[in-house]
Amino acid sequence: MEWKSSTALWRSNWNTAGRLARLGVHSRHGGLQCLQPCLLPHQRSASTGSKILVEMDNSTGIAVLTMKSPPVNSLSLDFLTEFSISLEKLELDRGCRGVILTSVRLDIMEMYGKSPEHCGEFWKAVQEMWLRLYGSSMITIAAINGSSPAGGCLMALACDYRIMAENPKYSIGLNETQLGIVAPFWFKDTLVNTVGNRAAELSLQLGLLYSAPDALRTGLVDLLVPEDKVLSTASQTMTQWLAIPDHARQITKSMMRKPTVDRLLASREPDINNFVSFITKDSIQKSLRVYMERLKQRKP
Amino acid sequence: MEWKSSTALWRSNWNTAGRLARLGVHSRHGGLQCLQPCLLPHQRSASTGSKILVEMDNSTGIAVLTMKSPPVNSLSLDFLTEFSISLEKLELDRGCRGVILTSVRLDIMEMYGKSPEHCGEFWKAVQEMWLRLYGSSMITIAAINGSSPAGGCLMALACDYRIMAENPKYSIGLNETQLGIVAPFWFKDTLVNTVGNRAAELSLQLGLLYSAPDALRTGLVDLLVPEDKVLSTASQTMTQWLAIPDHARQITKSMMRKPTVDRLLASREPDINNFVSFITKDSIQKSLRVYMERLKQRKP
Amino acid sequence: MEWKSSTALWRSNWNTAGRLARLGVHSRHGGLQCLQPCLLPHQRSASTGSKILVEMDNSTGIAVLTMKSPPVNSLSLDFLTEFSISLEKLELDRGCRGVILTSVRLDIMEMYGKSPEHCGEFWKAVQEMWLRLYGSSMITIAAINGSSPAGGCLMALACDYRIMAENPKYSIGLNETQLGIVAPFWFKDTLVNTVGNRAAELSLQLGLLYSAPDALRTGLVDLLVPEDKVLSTASQTMTQWLAIPDHARQITKSMMRKPTVDRLLASREPDINNFVSFITKDSIQKSLRVYMERLKQRKP
Repeated sequence: MEWKSSTALWRSNWNTAGRLARLGVHSRHGGLQCLQPCLLPHQRSASTGSKILVEMDNSTGIAVLTMKSPPVNSLSLDFLTEFSISLEKLELDRGCRGVILTSVRLDIMEMYGKSPEHCGEFWKAVQEMWLRLYGSSMITIAAINGSSPAGGCLMALACDYRIMAENPKYSIGLNETQLGIVAPFWFKDTLVNTVGNRAAELSLQLGLLYSAPDALRTGLVDLLVPEDKVLSTASQTMTQWLAIPDHARQITKSMMRKPTVDRLLASREPDINNFVSFITKDSIQKSLRVYMERLKQRKP
Repeated sequence: MEWKSSTALWRSNWNTAGRLARLGVHSRHGGLQCLQPCLLPHQRSASTGSKILVEMDNSTGIAVLTMKSPPVNSLSLDFLTEFSISLEKLELDRGCRGVILTSVRLDIMEMYGKSPEHCGEFWKAVQEMWLRLYGSSMITIAAINGSSPAGGCLMALACDYRIMAENPKYSIGLNETQLGIVAPFWFKDTLVNTVGNRAAELSLQLGLLYSAPDALRTGLVDLLVPEDKVLSTASQTMTQWLAIPDHARQITKSMMRKPTVDRLLASREPDINNFVSFITKDSIQKSLRVYMERLKQRKP
Repeated sequence: MEWKSSTALWRSNWNTAGRLARLGVHSRHGGLQCLQPCLLPHQRSASTGSKILVEMDNSTGIAVLTMKSPPVNSLSLDFLTEFSISLEKLELDRGCRGVILTSVRLDIMEMYGKSPEHCGEFWKAVQEMWLRLYGSSMITIAAINGSSPAGGCLMALACDYRIMAENPKYSIGLNETQLGIVAPFWFKDTLVNTVGNRAAELSLQLGLLYSAPDALRTGLVDLLVPEDKVLSTASQTMTQWLAIPDHARQITKSMMRKPTVDRLLASREPDINNFVSFITKDSIQKSLRVYMERLKQRKP
């Protein structure tokens, strides 16, 4: 296996350019007919929080969650809270059967120079997001059109299916060790469940970031498509998944994922305490600072 | 990974045309010498139940189990009972070291419009078959020369090695969700043990049926050969396995499989109750009816 | 998957020809610049036990452990004891961050015709070696330039990364069943963690020895290089691993491996008793004798 060692941003910036409104345009794919019901503006209801755009198509039962204002968006505490609330609303909406996620990031600033209380709150929100997403009874598809290090990769891994843009600039991976921090056991479990134990061990020890082709080879993502086809392909894939009877798919999904979800549920408090005592150490804060400074130097 | 979505019969019909008698004919393979002892009619003892033909070659210690009368054969309650008895007899026969299985099906009719008592008995028989096959101390090889959805796939997965015919019409997979039903945890465990967690999750959620090349790529089967070589290749493969000292192979097999077998042994009753209460629901019975009607419309 | 059935020596003889002193010579690789600090003689401290040469480069924190006198070296009780002591010393040496292992063997003679006491001591030493190596907080890389059956394969699997020489004569695998003996659960766990459950089951039941290309395909090793590049590539790879902050990598490694290590720690005594009562059986001793005689006949 090859890897590329990278010091890319510990945030994902799945491109938000592709919006639901565009799906009609891109839904033809290589001459094929538009298979999913065409999405007309009047069929959609859009709910707009301060950080997430939720576009719900009532005719298909598919919602698209998009970050609203790149590049400042990130997996901050506020974002995570809004995300979990949005997902819960969709989960309770019986009309919603599937969710396509685009453009997520994890904000390193939520862990740097913050009080233990803030770090604890932040980590609880990361847990909450993962518990809701990995345990969701809805079909969840990640439309990855941007780099997805750390938390962004976790969110993609928590979905049912991952479609990534064939863009040589994008990378994906749980690169925590490169920052001197550690992916906790439930990040690890999610990765092991996706790529197997050995690839996970190598990936986590070295904090590997994978190019799109390497991510496909390793099993980190399921499909590569040209960047402008990511959202339309996500929508077509969703249509295939929607053909499966919901109750049977949901019981099956729960059977596969419940043991992993239960492990975190059984130790949320210790996991938070562990994170807080680790991240507030001087040496770790220094690691984060060094990492951020390296990023800044690269930007000009 | 690619898959083909299919609504094929939830039965396997591994072709029964290839019989043990033909092995002598096909045992030369690509110009190689016939390595296994040639199987002469007088060396075989055939025991014939009403549904299964057991042909035992005393000179090699290899038995071949074949369904007798396609296309009506299926994994019915009667078949399963006869199968478990046949396998137990072979298990107790110290002369028998390996079994080649061909042509199995799982009968959807055993679950449709039946009493809870019948469904419970049927499910207990499916458990029994799997416990005996997955936990068998003999070498077990599946010679797959027909489509193997659901129960047929399970039986193949419970063997030590799977050889499939390169026939574009054949598919294999645990496609339960497509019928609106759910593969239970021990089907799932068997699949995870074979193809890993991620491929199993995708496969089970979508009820995927794989073509022979996709089945090979995913690891659902171990080898593809032309259809008329399936049984002879199974026999040659058996010869390689027989070269390993039995006691060492048996302890090793048990070490690998016992935890999975024990999981079902620890909860046979709840698993039966769970199946019965699920399968007798009106909504599930309706799903099965819809599925059978779709099959009928396809047939003419 | 293909395999080659083999009766090769149940010992590994990773070639010891490549020594640390040569690293400087081979560190240029395909025209690339020498990335790791060049290893000058005065930077190294060599400690020489009777069976293992430990060469420590204080400027890089990399130690190379080499068997001193092939072909008589083997994983004997004496060797194992010396190995565990050497590894413990390096583990306690804060200057040492990574270890490259070359040339190990497991000695079948330690199990043949020996008293139960000796067999028990030997097995305890094998456990000790594995516990220290698989659980090491240092970076461990196997430089495999020779065949590695059984114990030699186990040692390679216990490292973080495996680089194997592209030599058609070399094979690697846990081939215990071919000798009529059984790899214990912690050999099995180590293999499953590396290649997954299915490949491990097939591999262990048949006692498969893999050629270098097959070993790469199965995931038994991570990289193939020409034989004269094995040590230099190991050194370059080590440099990449050393770039990851130690504390984060160590916690991550421990998270991945601790459950597997703990399983053996919880049952060392029963595992030793199990081994001794098995290996001292007449039938097993006979299997070993047959195997050794077959090897002798091959040697002319």
